[in-house]
Amino acid sequence: MDNCIFCKIVSGNIPSAIVFDSDKIIAFLDIRPVNKGHVLILPKEHAETLLDVPESTLKDMIIAAKKIGKSFCKSLKADGFNLGMNNFAAAGQVVFHAHLHVIPRYECDGLQHWPGKTYDESEIDQYKEKIATFL
Amino acid sequence: MDNCIFCKIVSGNIPSAIVFDSDKIIAFLDIRPVNKGHVLILPKEHAETLLDVPESTLKDMIIAAKKIGKSFCKSLKADGFNLGMNNFAAAGQVVFHAHLHVIPRYECDGLQHWPGKTYDESEIDQYKEKIATFL
Repeated sequence: MDNCIFCKIVSGNIPSAIVFDSDKIIAFLDIRPVNKGHVLILPKEHAETLLDVPESTLKDMIIAAKKIGKSFCKSLKADGFNLGMNNFAAAGQVVFHAHLHVIPRYECDGLQHWPGKTYDESEIDQYKEKIATFL
Repeated sequence: MDNCIFCKIVSGNIPSAIVFDSDKIIAFLDIRPVNKGHVLILPKEHAETLLDVPESTLKDMIIAAKKIGKSFCKSLKADGFNLGMNNFAAAGQVVFHAHLHVIPRYECDGLQHWPGKTYDESEIDQYKEKIATFL
């Protein structure tokens, strides 16, 4: 993809701080980290969102995320870590080459999580049925 | 695990709105959804965080997340979806049975994303070296 900044990082045409590089995936530091050390894991082959990434590549991505999270706890003395993946613009995706965020976290680092809503009485079953219909 | 609420859901001792159930994993609706339809995917076998989940189970979890995200776009007319996983209390984990969030998203649903920080000149390479040392 000629205009994809992440494809340019994969090909080496744009430099990046790479921490992991294998057959199907690459992982490098986000230059605008939520917390310093924040890593992005992505398929080398261009894919727009999670829906476009082959299953074997997804497996490599989640296993890499586990390794990177474990590294954060040792290398950065992180107290925890988040995985995140924003799929489509409405979900906050900015670069349209699928990528998994791994973010080191610290006690009292001030990052807030989204609040929960509540369901009306029978509403949860209606949602269950809708979602399950397409699974 | 006798005191784990998610183990009780897995065993059927606590009811839940299950959308997906296979050999190694189960997925059900979060009763406090960020947006309605919000699903949790978890290993049936108790594991505290991502670091404790076997690789073959992680593969099943991420493939299920892809299917559920695809379903959201069809069943709920979602405009996008997020994956999220909070590992350890510092990262917002509340139930200590590892779980992957899949959250339907809509244009202008008002949910804010964490802002990015910046690195000083050589700092990003120092972080790269630290993290890569443990990979």
